[in-house]
Amino acid sequence: MEVLAKQTPGFSGADLANLVNEGAILAARRGKKKITMHEMNEAVDRVIAGPERKSRVISQKEREITAYHEAGHALVGFMLPNADPPYKISIIARGMAGGFTRFLPEEDRHFHTRSQLLDRLAAMLGGLVAEELVFGESSTGPSDDLEKATRVARQMVTHWGMSERLGPRTFGRKEEMVFLGREISEQRNYSEKVAEEIDEEVRQIIDKAYHTAKKLITDHRDRLDSIVKSLLEEETIEGEALASVLNGGDVPPRPETGGDAVPPSGDGEEKPQKPVQQPKPGLAWDSPTVTDPEV
Amino acid sequence: MEVLAKQTPGFSGADLANLVNEGAILAARRGKKKITMHEMNEAVDRVIAGPERKSRVISQKEREITAYHEAGHALVGFMLPNADPPYKISIIARGMAGGFTRFLPEEDRHFHTRSQLLDRLAAMLGGLVAEELVFGESSTGPSDDLEKATRVARQMVTHWGMSERLGPRTFGRKEEMVFLGREISEQRNYSEKVAEEIDEEVRQIIDKAYHTAKKLITDHRDRLDSIVKSLLEEETIEGEALASVLNGGDVPPRPETGGDAVPPSGDGEEKPQKPVQQPKPGLAWDSPTVTDPEV
Amino acid sequence: MEVLAKQTPGFSGADLANLVNEGAILAARRGKKKITMHEMNEAVDRVIAGPERKSRVISQKEREITAYHEAGHALVGFMLPNADPPYKISIIARGMAGGFTRFLPEEDRHFHTRSQLLDRLAAMLGGLVAEELVFGESSTGPSDDLEKATRVARQMVTHWGMSERLGPRTFGRKEEMVFLGREISEQRNYSEKVAEEIDEEVRQIIDKAYHTAKKLITDHRDRLDSIVKSLLEEETIEGEALASVLNGGDVPPRPETGGDAVPPSGDGEEKPQKPVQQPKPGLAWDSPTVTDPEV
Amino acid sequence: MEVLAKQTPGFSGADLANLVNEGAILAARRGKKKITMHEMNEAVDRVIAGPERKSRVISQKEREITAYHEAGHALVGFMLPNADPPYKISIIARGMAGGFTRFLPEEDRHFHTRSQLLDRLAAMLGGLVAEELVFGESSTGPSDDLEKATRVARQMVTHWGMSERLGPRTFGRKEEMVFLGREISEQRNYSEKVAEEIDEEVRQIIDKAYHTAKKLITDHRDRLDSIVKSLLEEETIEGEALASVLNGGDVPPRPETGGDAVPPSGDGEEKPQKPVQQPKPGLAWDSPTVTDPEV
Amino acid sequence: MEVLAKQTPGFSGADLANLVNEGAILAARRGKKKITMHEMNEAVDRVIAGPERKSRVISQKEREITAYHEAGHALVGFMLPNADPPYKISIIARGMAGGFTRFLPEEDRHFHTRSQLLDRLAAMLGGLVAEELVFGESSTGPSDDLEKATRVARQMVTHWGMSERLGPRTFGRKEEMVFLGREISEQRNYSEKVAEEIDEEVRQIIDKAYHTAKKLITDHRDRLDSIVKSLLEEETIEGEALASVLNGGDVPPRPETGGDAVPPSGDGEEKPQKPVQQPKPGLAWDSPTVTDPEV
Amino acid sequence: MEVLAKQTPGFSGADLANLVNEGAILAARRGKKKITMHEMNEAVDRVIAGPERKSRVISQKEREITAYHEAGHALVGFMLPNADPPYKISIIARGMAGGFTRFLPEEDRHFHTRSQLLDRLAAMLGGLVAEELVFGESSTGPSDDLEKATRVARQMVTHWGMSERLGPRTFGRKEEMVFLGREISEQRNYSEKVAEEIDEEVRQIIDKAYHTAKKLITDHRDRLDSIVKSLLEEETIEGEALASVLNGGDVPPRPETGGDAVPPSGDGEEKPQKPVQQPKPGLAWDSPTVTDPEV
Repeated sequence: MEVLAKQTPGFSGADLANLVNEGAILAARRGKKKITMHEMNEAVDRVIAGPERKSRVISQKEREITAYHEAGHALVGFMLPNADPPYKISIIARGMAGGFTRFLPEEDRHFHTRSQLLDRLAAMLGGLVAEELVFGESSTGPSDDLEKATRVARQMVTHWGMSERLGPRTFGRKEEMVFLGREISEQRNYSEKVAEEIDEEVRQIIDKAYHTAKKLITDHRDRLDSIVKSLLEEETIEGEALASVLNGGDVPPRPETGGDAVPPSGDGEEKPQKPVQQPKPGLAWDSPTVTDPEV
Repeated sequence: MEVLAKQTPGFSGADLANLVNEGAILAARRGKKKITMHEMNEAVDRVIAGPERKSRVISQKEREITAYHEAGHALVGFMLPNADPPYKISIIARGMAGGFTRFLPEEDRHFHTRSQLLDRLAAMLGGLVAEELVFGESSTGPSDDLEKATRVARQMVTHWGMSERLGPRTFGRKEEMVFLGREISEQRNYSEKVAEEIDEEVRQIIDKAYHTAKKLITDHRDRLDSIVKSLLEEETIEGEALASVLNGGDVPPRPETGGDAVPPSGDGEEKPQKPVQQPKPGLAWDSPTVTDPEV
Repeated sequence: MEVLAKQTPGFSGADLANLVNEGAILAARRGKKKITMHEMNEAVDRVIAGPERKSRVISQKEREITAYHEAGHALVGFMLPNADPPYKISIIARGMAGGFTRFLPEEDRHFHTRSQLLDRLAAMLGGLVAEELVFGESSTGPSDDLEKATRVARQMVTHWGMSERLGPRTFGRKEEMVFLGREISEQRNYSEKVAEEIDEEVRQIIDKAYHTAKKLITDHRDRLDSIVKSLLEEETIEGEALASVLNGGDVPPRPETGGDAVPPSGDGEEKPQKPVQQPKPGLAWDSPTVTDPEV
Repeated sequence: MEVLAKQTPGFSGADLANLVNEGAILAARRGKKKITMHEMNEAVDRVIAGPERKSRVISQKEREITAYHEAGHALVGFMLPNADPPYKISIIARGMAGGFTRFLPEEDRHFHTRSQLLDRLAAMLGGLVAEELVFGESSTGPSDDLEKATRVARQMVTHWGMSERLGPRTFGRKEEMVFLGREISEQRNYSEKVAEEIDEEVRQIIDKAYHTAKKLITDHRDRLDSIVKSLLEEETIEGEALASVLNGGDVPPRPETGGDAVPPSGDGEEKPQKPVQQPKPGLAWDSPTVTDPEV
Repeated sequence: MEVLAKQTPGFSGADLANLVNEGAILAARRGKKKITMHEMNEAVDRVIAGPERKSRVISQKEREITAYHEAGHALVGFMLPNADPPYKISIIARGMAGGFTRFLPEEDRHFHTRSQLLDRLAAMLGGLVAEELVFGESSTGPSDDLEKATRVARQMVTHWGMSERLGPRTFGRKEEMVFLGREISEQRNYSEKVAEEIDEEVRQIIDKAYHTAKKLITDHRDRLDSIVKSLLEEETIEGEALASVLNGGDVPPRPETGGDAVPPSGDGEEKPQKPVQQPKPGLAWDSPTVTDPEV
Repeated sequence: MEVLAKQTPGFSGADLANLVNEGAILAARRGKKKITMHEMNEAVDRVIAGPERKSRVISQKEREITAYHEAGHALVGFMLPNADPPYKISIIARGMAGGFTRFLPEEDRHFHTRSQLLDRLAAMLGGLVAEELVFGESSTGPSDDLEKATRVARQMVTHWGMSERLGPRTFGRKEEMVFLGREISEQRNYSEKVAEEIDEEVRQIIDKAYHTAKKLITDHRDRLDSIVKSLLEEETIEGEALASVLNGGDVPPRPETGGDAVPPSGDGEEKPQKPVQQPKPGLAWDSPTVTDPEV
């Protein structure tokens, strides 16, 4: 029970009922009389990301891109002291997604500090950065990551007062369009000059996160390759196995939580060592690679 | 009765009926035959902020951030001569909020003067300022404070003629969209140049309030720490206890209401002394710390 | 009958029926068999401004602010040759308003000249100016005055061709949104450059009216204080009493209607003398001090 | 019959039926058994401008302003070779209007040339110009004239290709909002730079018309005064009487239709002579002075 | 049958049924038992342009303007190698139109080349140009031509990639507002700078077409006058008669289709000769002169 | 079956049912008792592009333009290493389209890399480029290509983070207007300055693709002519025949997939050789030439 609870942070009662139901269906399909942990684990993934799409034909090239993308997320999230650590990576296609990396904070979170957000942004961009470093170009895959990262960076500037240049105030006036169901529009209530400043501040935050991710992945390229190698073989890595591959070889452990998001890396030799901790339940987030129907 | 009346300013008849009903439910649940003052006090908080969320697991770090945040509000509101004094602080999670500080003006108010608004703005920003000074960075917690403060500062400039630069006129044309229920939109009926000036004036007002709060909290950091210490122990402080902790040690009493919102603090030694006054009922306001579902 | 007619300019047949009905109710409540003039006067105020709110507790400070605010309106309106003269001041709270000053032109008006509008604007800003001069700052009270003044000044520029700089044309295209009931929106059909010029012209008109009001109140501060003193004692002043207090002491009478809105005041000694005239019915306007629910 | 036909250009069958009906009602009210020409003339005015408002009390000052306003329209329209000549002036209040001047082209028109539009614009502004020249300021009365003039000038630039600077094209995209009944909105489909050029061209056209009107009224101020004198006595002038007063004294007759809208007036002595022609039916237009409910 | 088919390009089955029905009605009205070609020809005009308005009184001046306007369209369309040749001109008022010129491409067209569009634009502006050259000013008549020409020029720049400066891309995002019936709005998805460039490119295209039309009409003014003379006599010209008058006298025949829209006209002496060809059915277009209800 | 499957990538179950139904109808119409491959092939085209429009009269000129347009698409798509190879060209009019070229990636694709998108853009613009090079001007035919290309280029900049200048973030906020069915609008949430940068980046991407297409078609003009010659004779080319004509003569084979979209072509002599590969099923796309109803 506790293992399941740890994997299902934020689930409502209805979600949990649905989860058990999925487990029962899987067990019945397999001719079992009892739902084992095996079915429950599978059920968790089905509920969060949709059923496996085994019939989907994926080229070797796309499989590799997906693996490097997910490994990029996981590696950056693991390395940064204020980011949530990854607890599962998969390159099995589910629903619209070609793969996913799942993160879990070490304790319950009800709000976030600026440094937590900056490290999370770096982890969000880790997928795109890995694609660029390995293949010389990125793909349409990270569009969802970019949208989420932009939204967070923009909120930091316009709603959480985290830009010194623009100061402790909010920008934009939310309009809940009640007659449109749940649609929310945002009215611009500031000048064009401020709009430019917001753009510049968002850009700086995104750039900072991008370079943090780039430095980490460049410094630990060997570890990125190891993760990808495991991932192409196993398709899904989690728990002790994930801990092992993220800490593999002479890889430094994860540093203690500190004030600065950029990991110490003067000459590129000192490497933070981080013992794998069993992640505690909290506010998890997904970084699925979405296949694009837009082109 | 009078004690309850003082705690429920602005309550409608329906609100009061609801309040007594909540008290009756609590009493019944506790097997009592009469509703005591204990149940009524609890009922007031339930009606204003929602039921307690005792089951919610909150990390020590987040508890401390919340405590410093609420203490920041309370300290600034207490110190400024034209701000409403605080009458209750709590770090018990209720509804969406992780804690709250409640203020109550010393007399009924039907309108506000410029200096009252400036001091209130400083108290609104006190939470964010405390976070920054103590932890070196702020969190997503103050987003609601920032939104309220921005709205007040903007109204000062665009509806109350309180910006000398823009003069005694209003800006923007309210449109009550009757077909959308209660939605109110605001049409821009001024030039881009004026929009810039409004932004700059709002920024100046916010900055003034921010620096007032920063100076006060920096000067009285020891008292801030005392409040937080009590708050972490007691979870809720009010009445005489709150008066005592706000006046604790060599802390100066609250100065008499005067024209200038900035407290006298030449060399940082003279400290205003303020005897705790039983707050009279008026137009109270809350400053709850909202947990963010947006990240 | 004639007295009532003079007090109810612009009333429709339905309004008058309502008025008599209110008078009958008041008489019945007081156990009278006939409606006397006393009830009818009270009825006029009820119909225009709502019932008295005697239960409302108003602090001495707010009572004084309201009195100075209303006295400011009345004094400026009385002094300016092309403004409508005041015929009643009150600081009794009614409906949403904390007080009101009522004006009545000396003859029926079907349109307004530029100089009448300029003087009316000065009277509209008289409340805010009085607050600033007496208390060193203004309050949220004048927001309604500012909105009305801005609308008139804007109309002078955009609909009545009264800005030489922008010339004899209109700006903006009214859109009566029939499906929204009576909502009227205004589409901008001019360039940003013209929008700036409109802002500047509106600003100049408002500034001119503001300085006219400021000079008048500064020059006749003693009379302002007398009005306030009477008002705090009587709560409502009208007719001969109002004439007396507005003309009181060595106060100059109202000058004859002339071309220039600025009263002659070279060395501040010559003072216009104006015998109180019984105001004739016309297009009256109110300047209620609204209590603000927005903070 | 022919006389009536000449007075009712543009009337639909339904309008004519309505007209005869109004005539019948008037005759019945006067106890006549036949509808005479007297009733029909009155009916025409009722149908176009609404019933007379004899009970309305109008001050002498406003009556004079209205008379000069209407006389200004009529004089400019009479003097300009390409404008439609006036055929009736009235200062009797009808419906919302305090007075009107009615124009009638000498022949049916299905479209207008540039010079016809420029002269019509000057006649439209004649009312405002007369107010300014006689009283030193204008009133809110001409707002309707200004709106019409602005619309025509704007159409010349944006829909009729009559601005050399902007060239033979249209600007703006009409959107007939079918779901809003007859509301028409216009989408801006051009740059801010073009919007400025449109504003400047509209301004130039309006200015040209304004100065044409100003010169004509200044040069023939004596005739303006004669018209006003007659109008204040007679209240309504039309037909031969109007011809006589417009040609009165040493007043020059109306020049022949030529290419240039500006009348020859080298030293202010040569005066065009224009025999009064019985106007032929065509596309008539009204210039009512609207009383303003907006202040 | 073939003659009718040639006159009704683009007609749907329903249009053709309507056409025959109109013919039958006309025949019945004339007491005929068979529908002759005479009725069918009349029916074609009724279906396309509405019934004749013989009762409408049109001044000689307006008749001349209309004739020159239509002749301008026809002459320019005839002269330009890539424009569709005219096959019928009329100055009989029908529906809202005072006259029309109808064009018919020599073969079916499913798309248009850049040079075809440029020549068509010149023909569209031919009406306005003729008015300006003959009368020294244009009228409100060409508003419909200007709107169509602007739309085509704008499409060339924003949808057909025909502006070298802006390149092979589209601008603006069409929004079919399904709930508004057939209304189509266009969202601006480009910067203000691009909006300026679009304006400038549209202006250049329009200017090029305008000058092409101006040069052609100036060079062949004698032929324009001949067409107008015939038109004022005959009211409608088509077929051989139109061919004859367009080729009349020493008028050059229409040149062969070539790459450049500007006709060779070094010294203004060499004149293109064009034998009148019986136009083949295709995508015809109308250029009606609309009477304006907008002034 | 496999042949059909290869031709119907992306078809849903319902699409396939529809396909077989169309085949059955065709077989029945031809009096066959069995559906042969002939009917199925025809059915595929009917389902994708609509029924043949054999009755449509197309001029020789338009047939040639269409043939060059489609050949341009096919040649560029064939030459570029990262573009999807063409598998069928047709100039038979179907539905609204005058012809089409169909492309099929060599393997299933779930996302696209930057170089794949750049090569696809070049193939999209190949039709317009061929028209320009052969006829000296383009037509309205490519409007659909331009719209698609603009959308892809814009997405690269605003949603896929593929512009180095603007960085790894998204721009614009999608609003699914639920009450409008499936309409999606996009709210601009960035400054005018960023809007300009987006325009410039989109322009650069489009220009790069345009010049790639121009160089390829210029270098292989002889092969373009061969394709057109075959197309005018055969009307539809696919499979081995298409492979043969695309590789015809001394034409170089298609190069291996590499990093750079620009084919090696220093002196224009070295020519990539590409053996025709039977395309594997994947995400196919069409490039129909749409006839324009907009002029």
